[in-house]
Amino acid sequence: MTDMAAIDAWVDDHKPRLLTELMGFLRAPSVSTDPGYAAGLERAGAILLERLQRIGLRNVQALQEGGHRAIYGEWLDAPGAPTILVYGHYDVQPPDPLELWETPPFEPTIRDGKLYARGASDDKSPLWIAVSALEAWLATERRLPVNVKLLLEGEEEIGSRSLPAILAAHHELLRADVLLSADGGRWRADLPSVNTSSRGLAALQLEVRTAGRDLHSGRYGGAVGNAVMVLARLLASLHDNENRIVVAGFADGLARPGNADIASMDRLDFDAAGFYDAIGARPGALEPGGRLLEALWLRPTIEVNGIAGGYDGPGGKTVIPCTARAKLTCRLGPGQDPKQAGDAVAAHLRAHLPEYADLVIDQEREGVAAYAVPEDDRFLAVIEQVVEQVHGTRPVRVGIGGTLPISAMVKQSLGIETVMFSYATADENIHAPNEYFRLQSFDDGLLAWTRLFEALGKVA
Amino acid sequence: MTDMAAIDAWVDDHKPRLLTELMGFLRAPSVSTDPGYAAGLERAGAILLERLQRIGLRNVQALQEGGHRAIYGEWLDAPGAPTILVYGHYDVQPPDPLELWETPPFEPTIRDGKLYARGASDDKSPLWIAVSALEAWLATERRLPVNVKLLLEGEEEIGSRSLPAILAAHHELLRADVLLSADGGRWRADLPSVNTSSRGLAALQLEVRTAGRDLHSGRYGGAVGNAVMVLARLLASLHDNENRIVVAGFADGLARPGNADIASMDRLDFDAAGFYDAIGARPGALEPGGRLLEALWLRPTIEVNGIAGGYDGPGGKTVIPCTARAKLTCRLGPGQDPKQAGDAVAAHLRAHLPEYADLVIDQEREGVAAYAVPEDDRFLAVIEQVVEQVHGTRPVRVGIGGTLPISAMVKQSLGIETVMFSYATADENIHAPNEYFRLQSFDDGLLAWTRLFEALGKVA
Repeated sequence: MTDMAAIDAWVDDHKPRLLTELMGFLRAPSVSTDPGYAAGLERAGAILLERLQRIGLRNVQALQEGGHRAIYGEWLDAPGAPTILVYGHYDVQPPDPLELWETPPFEPTIRDGKLYARGASDDKSPLWIAVSALEAWLATERRLPVNVKLLLEGEEEIGSRSLPAILAAHHELLRADVLLSADGGRWRADLPSVNTSSRGLAALQLEVRTAGRDLHSGRYGGAVGNAVMVLARLLASLHDNENRIVVAGFADGLARPGNADIASMDRLDFDAAGFYDAIGARPGALEPGGRLLEALWLRPTIEVNGIAGGYDGPGGKTVIPCTARAKLTCRLGPGQDPKQAGDAVAAHLRAHLPEYADLVIDQEREGVAAYAVPEDDRFLAVIEQVVEQVHGTRPVRVGIGGTLPISAMVKQSLGIETVMFSYATADENIHAPNEYFRLQSFDDGLLAWTRLFEALGKVA
Repeated sequence: MTDMAAIDAWVDDHKPRLLTELMGFLRAPSVSTDPGYAAGLERAGAILLERLQRIGLRNVQALQEGGHRAIYGEWLDAPGAPTILVYGHYDVQPPDPLELWETPPFEPTIRDGKLYARGASDDKSPLWIAVSALEAWLATERRLPVNVKLLLEGEEEIGSRSLPAILAAHHELLRADVLLSADGGRWRADLPSVNTSSRGLAALQLEVRTAGRDLHSGRYGGAVGNAVMVLARLLASLHDNENRIVVAGFADGLARPGNADIASMDRLDFDAAGFYDAIGARPGALEPGGRLLEALWLRPTIEVNGIAGGYDGPGGKTVIPCTARAKLTCRLGPGQDPKQAGDAVAAHLRAHLPEYADLVIDQEREGVAAYAVPEDDRFLAVIEQVVEQVHGTRPVRVGIGGTLPISAMVKQSLGIETVMFSYATADENIHAPNEYFRLQSFDDGLLAWTRLFEALGKVA
């Protein structure tokens, strides 16, 4: 018989230390997209290796196949119980623009019950909760109620580039019955929910060139192409005046939401005004007639993530910029092929390029397909039971607009589904300045995860 | 009787020293648009003050009315001869992008008969030639053949902001019969020409905002405006698909070129293919049916000089940027009112702004009107005679596409016309990396300017 009270008491006793260690983990600037942060990524990985060994996981090691290493550990002495592959990521987004942070991104700070740091919500605290729940079990019961494999990668924010190679190279090691993701986030802090789908991703980088060098706008203006203007027109050509994507072939295969999905979204009684107020934005950017939740969870997008060209210093400079560049990412809905969607955008841009300009397109990633867990998945049912047990309310099923590359990958390579269980919340400024994690979620998460492992051990 | 042979011999003897001193002048990083360069601007001004005194000009002083100082000097002992206000500017454009310079912008370097430095062509060498020609006269003849006032400003690259105040405060001091500009540049190195017109300028800075902070493109994409995309659409709305400006009211008052202008342009037999080859560009950005020289000299433009928004670091970052900014400048044709043209662009942008975005427009300057010297101006005739005398060919009259704020200002405040006499050449990478000045132009310029002063002394 498991003594949950003993586990809960252990958690209460050790919470200050767990939080202090989490803050040390947040201090490691593990930005995966920028080689300048290699040392921070190394340090975050080293912290995980040390911790997994210390709490009693076995076979702890780094898995590396040409990219940043993933950290692995296991505990497999629960005969007859399923094997759960617990997933999280220790890499983070760049902290730019630095000047908008109230406290430095890699100096974790607690204010008003919130822990501020880059990676606090995405995904270091959620990952830390999962590992801490394992520690609570192993420290008190000297066993786990279920077989567990941990896979904590360092490349989620750059499309999990080498994860397919890691999955292929360590196929036996990683074999499991389900992937349990500590990444993904909750819909709202005050409404129990479980995530059942995620959008896909395709990314392109563009560079336009119109001349061999920047040119004086007086000497040459009127006769020579302006690279920034050309790029602006290309970007403007991707949507019509009512925000509909008009790229031929982009939406091929896109599934329309089913009646169950629509009914579920409508039941949520979503507070659109509150949604916009919270982010200082106004409605109007939606496709005409579109459902807000459908736009956020199931509809594809084409976004410019950044643009640069010409002079951006103080004052002015009367140049015609000869080059301009932009980073684009597309979120994809169910049914879209990421490669084909990216190709469609590239073809559209090339077709709209004026004769006097050159365009280089770098489709840097293969892309990630959207994912949805089957609605009758047995592990999904356990997740819903545990949420109801802990929060007293049956959770609603929600989609997430973001992308979890791992889901499509493990479906393909290991043949398993993904269920998500994260105590991050959607409003915690992830990928933005002043990212934070609610301290209350740290408590709630530990309570839920210790129970989740037990419930998963009983799945037939 | 003037001994021109003695003056020419003096020039030959002193040319190495004059060039060495010019390189010292070029070493002062006198960027006027960026407060970070204040010390460089100060140093360049100090070099001029010292030099004007040393060569024997009188009443040498700095004129300052709230902006960067202008340097003044005079020699007025030529009774009965006209008074020439010689104009140049010692401020320069920012050197960005620094990485494209083959040698550092403020370390003047001679390669293949060219002097490379920021400001080498615009306008430090041309100004230096004018001052050196005065020195040659004063050193050999102990007199000038004409009354001369020198006005060397430090704000040309920022629209000569405080020059109207300087002209107003020192109206008597600056009174003259004509303004002779050492700024402006030649059309081509191998074709004698004189500039008779310049385009006007209006400048705007834009900032678009769509939310209170940058947002995760997965969590929010599809429902929230993207500031970069909004800005791109605004910029794209300024022209139609064939590069025609479609801003209502922008071109009000614009004069169509007269038959004489058109005949003059056609006589030039302009080498369009060579023009594009030299700058690594291709044709096609011209308005349909437009004459290339008309587009360069007399037609208005709207250019983006720079754009920025979102993430532009290594790799990617899946954000929806909440702000984006751009710098715009418009070149204006004869008849356009700069204030009205800028207002028309601002009104157009506001009218095209979607309801979910905010736009801040900073019309930072009052703007400058286009200018043309009357075709029968007596000083213009002298310029043409001297060019013919020195180069053996009657010069063609050309327009310049750039803006010389001084011309419209002195026309209004002093009631005088402007003639231009510069040995800069249009292809010398002004406002761009690797700006240079031909050493041959230094020789030609000294020969021409020593003769020009004498010829101007004879104007009735």
